[in-house]
Amino acid sequence: MLSALDLARRIEAGELTPVQVIEQCAQAIAAREAEIGAFVTLDLDGARKAAQNPALKDTPLRGLPAGLKDIFDTADLPTEYGSPIYAGHRPRMDAPLVTLLRRAGGLVLGKTVTTEFAHLDPGKTRNPRKPAHTPGGSSSGSAAAVAAGFVPIATGSQTGGSVIRPASYCGVVGYKPSYRMLPAVGMKCVSWHLDTAGLFAAGVADVAFFAAAVSGRDLRVDRASPASPRIAVLRAQPWPSASADMAAALDAAARAAAAAMARIRDIQLPPVVAAAFRAHSTIHAYEAARALAPEYDRHRDQLGKSLRELIDAGTTISADAYDEARRTASRARQALADLMADCDVILSPSAPGAAPEGLRSTGNSTFNRLWTLMGNPCVNVPGLADEDGLPLGMQVIGRFGADRATLEAALFLETAIARRR
Amino acid sequence: MLSALDLARRIEAGELTPVQVIEQCAQAIAAREAEIGAFVTLDLDGARKAAQNPALKDTPLRGLPAGLKDIFDTADLPTEYGSPIYAGHRPRMDAPLVTLLRRAGGLVLGKTVTTEFAHLDPGKTRNPRKPAHTPGGSSSGSAAAVAAGFVPIATGSQTGGSVIRPASYCGVVGYKPSYRMLPAVGMKCVSWHLDTAGLFAAGVADVAFFAAAVSGRDLRVDRASPASPRIAVLRAQPWPSASADMAAALDAAARAAAAAMARIRDIQLPPVVAAAFRAHSTIHAYEAARALAPEYDRHRDQLGKSLRELIDAGTTISADAYDEARRTASRARQALADLMADCDVILSPSAPGAAPEGLRSTGNSTFNRLWTLMGNPCVNVPGLADEDGLPLGMQVIGRFGADRATLEAALFLETAIARRR
Repeated sequence: MLSALDLARRIEAGELTPVQVIEQCAQAIAAREAEIGAFVTLDLDGARKAAQNPALKDTPLRGLPAGLKDIFDTADLPTEYGSPIYAGHRPRMDAPLVTLLRRAGGLVLGKTVTTEFAHLDPGKTRNPRKPAHTPGGSSSGSAAAVAAGFVPIATGSQTGGSVIRPASYCGVVGYKPSYRMLPAVGMKCVSWHLDTAGLFAAGVADVAFFAAAVSGRDLRVDRASPASPRIAVLRAQPWPSASADMAAALDAAARAAAAAMARIRDIQLPPVVAAAFRAHSTIHAYEAARALAPEYDRHRDQLGKSLRELIDAGTTISADAYDEARRTASRARQALADLMADCDVILSPSAPGAAPEGLRSTGNSTFNRLWTLMGNPCVNVPGLADEDGLPLGMQVIGRFGADRATLEAALFLETAIARRR
Repeated sequence: MLSALDLARRIEAGELTPVQVIEQCAQAIAAREAEIGAFVTLDLDGARKAAQNPALKDTPLRGLPAGLKDIFDTADLPTEYGSPIYAGHRPRMDAPLVTLLRRAGGLVLGKTVTTEFAHLDPGKTRNPRKPAHTPGGSSSGSAAAVAAGFVPIATGSQTGGSVIRPASYCGVVGYKPSYRMLPAVGMKCVSWHLDTAGLFAAGVADVAFFAAAVSGRDLRVDRASPASPRIAVLRAQPWPSASADMAAALDAAARAAAAAMARIRDIQLPPVVAAAFRAHSTIHAYEAARALAPEYDRHRDQLGKSLRELIDAGTTISADAYDEARRTASRARQALADLMADCDVILSPSAPGAAPEGLRSTGNSTFNRLWTLMGNPCVNVPGLADEDGLPLGMQVIGRFGADRATLEAALFLETAIARRR
């Protein structure tokens, strides 16, 4: 994989040029893209041209190439949202996050595969760790592109588990910031209370560096050793259990953190938070039925099965049931803030297990939905794996708005896991 | 003005056809549109054609023609957001609210004038009550179109005071529902924590009927007399005072409500709510600088002065200041919910005074910003006027999520004011 921070430092030191980084990406892409299928649109020549701009040396990202999930509008590249309805679509304007990325000196190398409208119906992408397995979704192409060394940075979005789960399956860092820390404008909307823009990179310090550059926030965690976090381990949850491998990985991660002097304790979620997990489905379906109403009415036959089912389910939900789900979510956010008053982060698996075999499903978001609805920042920390070498990601869940502390705790855990091996 | 409810009832009773309603609108438009300038795009022929669909008789809106603020995407009509940057722009898909309107049996008669990106730089629209005066903004065309009898219903959006203020100036009912009750998807975004879709109609029962039809919620208030509400009158507020005329109108409205047996008391806003009023500007500018970053970077010379100033201001706001403003807003929402525990609605002027003379400014949103940020439902109730006959609107502010109770209280006040005369 390509470390964004390492590449940026080498460009800064004059050891490397943005053009050379792009050629490194181009080589990796030439070697494996036909097999992996991370991109819908590649623009190597456009990136090569943009990389020659001398002003890039004064930007935070210094000309690093990025993959953009094809759910973000781009004015100069097609934007199809993983749907035949939008074949060849060229939005009038970039999504604001794309502009922020360009301002920070990021170059757009291409658009990456998304499931249809960031829901469940999969695209063509394979898992670079084991190509017979799913890369996860919906940000399939972005997670796979970082895992395969095609790009050092990529954008994604999460409505259920679409950043954290593919990051876990592909063994990269995925970061879902606090709700609306990054603008979701110009990102195809499925559910306005859930859709959250996210980022991918090779390591925690890389993703924090990327996040700092696009948000202008003080999020870099590479300049000092992180303090020992107080970690609350979530071993039992109100959704189906993790696989035995994943449960063992959680134990191993907690032991590694304890050995590195983190303060560890177990935590249990109060009933209202468990109720909020169920409320996610209600809010998701109700809003999807409205957000995608235009596509449903004009192009129903071009919608995938899972999406039609989601919209049909959303149409049967009453306004009262939706309002009640939102009130439950509101109460749960308060209960969760109280619960986390004396810990820095919650530690939980990022997914039920390793990436399932086959490409017809992108896996399951049960371990992520609650945190998307609550709006808490989450980071997938890679480093553990099952016997076949498939990644088992750890999910570090921070307090709402405490993104820097969350990234610091994730870096601490990443280091502790690496030292363990 | 055209009462939506009355027209729908007459269509239902077979006394009127949707085509006849459109001809009535066409006559009013032919008589005064050249003077008023409410529309950017008129599609009388498209509406005439659509009005012949016999299935309309089974829909809630029964083929009523609507004006859509040109901030909502439409696939079959240009959508320019009041900006030369989007001249001739044809979005790929309707905004979801437009689809919900069509599903409910509404017909699109045209797109109405918005200020540039729903901010301050005005369009061509004049106030139908007195054409030398501003209609208010940013939903200038929608408020004017209803006031002039061009359409019975119209959509708008509010980030500061863009629904309630033009409704007040033009003497129509404007309704800003609870934050995100109506989807803001496909509505050009300026500030994601503030932008709220809203509706216009002639009377309170009309706007409630319209809202019920597009939202599928139980919001109709025309089927029984509203109960006497508990009204808290806000006479002093943490922003500059209303004009003497407007203060007198507030007194008159409170007296009329008391005479109709409403329970009236005065209310004062706690300091954290006053702080939230100031937080609005911080959140607005910070988010506008990001939401409109693509337009700023690619077409800065085509942006109006007010908008450039807003974006420039937003660029200087730190993430810490923005986060603090959001926390203030959060605390204020809780304080406001506590404050309103024993009243149904707050009563306040809808604007500092009557519509100012001249077309270079759309007036001032100081009386609306707080409520937009808090997310509470608001209704402008017309019926009072100054000595020159210019409307002085009353703002009925309900509890978050209690939209039906808010509309009932607004209907009560509308009736009380009408009886007074």
